[in-house]
Amino acid sequence: MTVDQLSAVFGALADPTRRAILTRLTKGDANVAEIVVPFTMSQPAISRHLKVLEQAGLVSRNRQGASRLSHLEAEPLREATAWLARYQEYWDERFHQLDALLASIQDERGTHRPDRWSTP
Amino acid sequence: MTVDQLSAVFGALADPTRRAILTRLTKGDANVAEIVVPFTMSQPAISRHLKVLEQAGLVSRNRQGASRLSHLEAEPLREATAWLARYQEYWDERFHQLDALLASIQDERGTHRPDRWSTP
Repeated sequence: MTVDQLSAVFGALADPTRRAILTRLTKGDANVAEIVVPFTMSQPAISRHLKVLEQAGLVSRNRQGASRLSHLEAEPLREATAWLARYQEYWDERFHQLDALLASIQDERGTHRPDRWSTP
Repeated sequence: MTVDQLSAVFGALADPTRRAILTRLTKGDANVAEIVVPFTMSQPAISRHLKVLEQAGLVSRNRQGASRLSHLEAEPLREATAWLARYQEYWDERFHQLDALLASIQDERGTHRPDRWSTP
């Protein structure tokens, strides 16, 4: 996956309607009339979102009879996840530091462990 | 994390310069003059990217003496990864199907396993 493809994938995911369409397509292929049902949005608006998803490689569209079925292409999500996973050690480390800090506060005060986000 | 925060995180990641800045910050906190070095870009352009990252919660900025240090906040990346991980079964399934298909072709032909993307 090229740098620009990865940008297109993250850009496509940066919208709640487009993420909801991907979730809908996990239940099976669907045409735009089926996809639009739960949304307070017009079919043309949904079609524009499908185009963005298609350009990012997250949806393929195949004609079946009179309608075009949208199909989830999950592979680019795997690549995006692989990119994000490189940062795992940084969020883990932070949580480990936070856990160590909370444990030391608990030891010093001999009290119950404080709520994670409470002020001292 | 709210729906809009998740959109802001994915939107912030939809740019190669902003992703490169996050990678730079894994090596330690830095001010804008340090961050700009490997880029063919002005400090104001980098500052605009830092603002997008800060608004998405991916970077915090703290004044230290005369300069403002940017710090990687990896936690929103964990939340974005958690969202993407829900699709793991769909990309896995596809790969399993592909593996099964390749195995059956291999069995039929009694040949070496073909290159995954070669044409028949």
